[in-house]
Amino acid sequence: MKPPASIGQRLEEVDTPALILDLDGFERNIATLGKSLEGKTIRVRPHAKTHKCPEIAQRQIAAGAVGVCCQKVSEAEALVNGGIADVLITNEIVGAPKIARLATLSKRARIGVCVDDADNLRAVAASGARLDVYIELEVGMRRCGVAPGEPVLALAKEIVRHRKLRFAGLHAYHGRAQHVRSMHERRAAIDNAAKAVLLTKNLLEKNKIPCYVVTGAGSGTYMLEVENGAWDEIQPGSYLFMDADYAKNEWAAPLPRFEHALFVLATVMSRPAPDRAIVDAGLKASSVDSGMPLVFQKENLKYTHASDEHGWIEGEKLPALGEKLLLVPGHCDPTVNLYDWYVGVRRGVVEALWAITARGALT
Amino acid sequence: MKPPASIGQRLEEVDTPALILDLDGFERNIATLGKSLEGKTIRVRPHAKTHKCPEIAQRQIAAGAVGVCCQKVSEAEALVNGGIADVLITNEIVGAPKIARLATLSKRARIGVCVDDADNLRAVAASGARLDVYIELEVGMRRCGVAPGEPVLALAKEIVRHRKLRFAGLHAYHGRAQHVRSMHERRAAIDNAAKAVLLTKNLLEKNKIPCYVVTGAGSGTYMLEVENGAWDEIQPGSYLFMDADYAKNEWAAPLPRFEHALFVLATVMSRPAPDRAIVDAGLKASSVDSGMPLVFQKENLKYTHASDEHGWIEGEKLPALGEKLLLVPGHCDPTVNLYDWYVGVRRGVVEALWAITARGALT
Repeated sequence: MKPPASIGQRLEEVDTPALILDLDGFERNIATLGKSLEGKTIRVRPHAKTHKCPEIAQRQIAAGAVGVCCQKVSEAEALVNGGIADVLITNEIVGAPKIARLATLSKRARIGVCVDDADNLRAVAASGARLDVYIELEVGMRRCGVAPGEPVLALAKEIVRHRKLRFAGLHAYHGRAQHVRSMHERRAAIDNAAKAVLLTKNLLEKNKIPCYVVTGAGSGTYMLEVENGAWDEIQPGSYLFMDADYAKNEWAAPLPRFEHALFVLATVMSRPAPDRAIVDAGLKASSVDSGMPLVFQKENLKYTHASDEHGWIEGEKLPALGEKLLLVPGHCDPTVNLYDWYVGVRRGVVEALWAITARGALT
Repeated sequence: MKPPASIGQRLEEVDTPALILDLDGFERNIATLGKSLEGKTIRVRPHAKTHKCPEIAQRQIAAGAVGVCCQKVSEAEALVNGGIADVLITNEIVGAPKIARLATLSKRARIGVCVDDADNLRAVAASGARLDVYIELEVGMRRCGVAPGEPVLALAKEIVRHRKLRFAGLHAYHGRAQHVRSMHERRAAIDNAAKAVLLTKNLLEKNKIPCYVVTGAGSGTYMLEVENGAWDEIQPGSYLFMDADYAKNEWAAPLPRFEHALFVLATVMSRPAPDRAIVDAGLKASSVDSGMPLVFQKENLKYTHASDEHGWIEGEKLPALGEKLLLVPGHCDPTVNLYDWYVGVRRGVVEALWAITARGALT
């Protein structure tokens, strides 16, 4: 895949639509995360499902992360191929072909995986994989995971029986809480999740099964988990980019404010009427599952509607035909998954081209 | 990119998520389109923005299509590279880099393009491109396009002045009408669009500017355009696959019924509770912009919610851990754009692997 821009090119010259990473903002977001954790005892394992890019994972590790997370075996393969030595798949891996690939990968890097079912655990163990195994704990998200307490103990007893598997701890992630708008309600959700964690951890330890790491948390709540004390490791992903949906959250202490650093560059391709400009970035260029993109730093303009390859811009003082706009995606993760490259820009000049090698890594 | 399956493999063995094309259904949909047009004088130019695949375009041409449509220069490049000799870009192409690529491509194949602006037209003409140029007519979609009547005449007079450009006619597509549920309202929208077409065509002909082709129409309305008589060419795309959103339309004569032929194969990766099964296909595997996928031929099951990599299945008699389901995507075009391959299956066996070479072709 040919890069969509060249080093030294000016932002205005980059053809559109393109996925633009503002390198200053991106680096400040990494620094902001670090600063918010100063003096805290917590491991950082950022979620690479957001960025799908070894170049970015390397920078997160250089800033102190212990490794990264991802959701799919194919994402983990892309990350290991890109030089990442420690990857936790925060997900259950089901089916013989995937488990075989997981086993192969586990001989090349330190790989963790989640389980929530005894049959699946036996299939993973039978593959000969050498893995850190986490039990996914249901903490209010109503997705995957085992109920707190006795069901976790029963599964942990199974894990410790397998020689090549290491029971690493609990994966306790409350995904729904991330996008709850008020800090008050997010804190209530995390406090509830913490009760499930502590009850389960105590039961495991009472049964002489050490629970090394409790891992979880996202960009919308992570300081609540840190302050709560029940977690050992956090998994923020979106803090790097800060999408339009996350920006709708209430951001207040203890959470720091991150800035928009990821954009879709779009061109006005039609000015068919005085009250309407059409851009060349629709829903194949910016995922609309969590709402329309924002027009960056143009309060007068609103992206009101998307079709497959077109976006509607309405408002005061509409841009001229050929003018370019920076759009802040509604949801960064699925938007990144539409592109093969980040065009890294610093102060208006292309400085880096990073391949999104886990783009489309579904299996 | 390695294919995600192998020829001769059984459907149940294909790793998930995978984009499955039921070849029998796909071929029947092509035949159904042909049958619905028997005895009619109409050109068929299917829209390749839906499938993004030269292998499929070739089959459409073998079934009688005059060529295909697409939306982006990069899509047209992928189609020409895949052996397609006649491609109409049903969209305005704005900006120097894209126009330069359009000019290059126009020397390799018969290429058409739309215009709705005189400045843009001059930029296209100055590139030296040899093109069929269509004026995009605004027929009720409120997207791009020129208002009917005099504004089209003024632009057509500009086009005929340029030696390497050929004024080919009008692009008159009512995209919004495709998804209007009732036949009655769709017919009203197309009848209105036809008035704009005829008024404009008459004005052009009165001014001795022949309007060779009026092109437009989609899978949700095309027989209305055919019966109306104002169109010379139709551009259906989704009829090949028939997604869950299109299936919600009222389908009645004169439109034939197409069948679901495109699926996302998913695996149940967690059975965390009696009332819930979680599959490994979320919104990175099936675009949810037009609603959730349908569970194919399982009336008892409902896909109720998607997160990035997970889907929630609820209902009676939930599938077991590891069981596979065929999902009918909510919207086929952006779903296809998430995959690199079609896994073509006939009666349960993988028969074809077709590369989606225009996947991610945004520019």
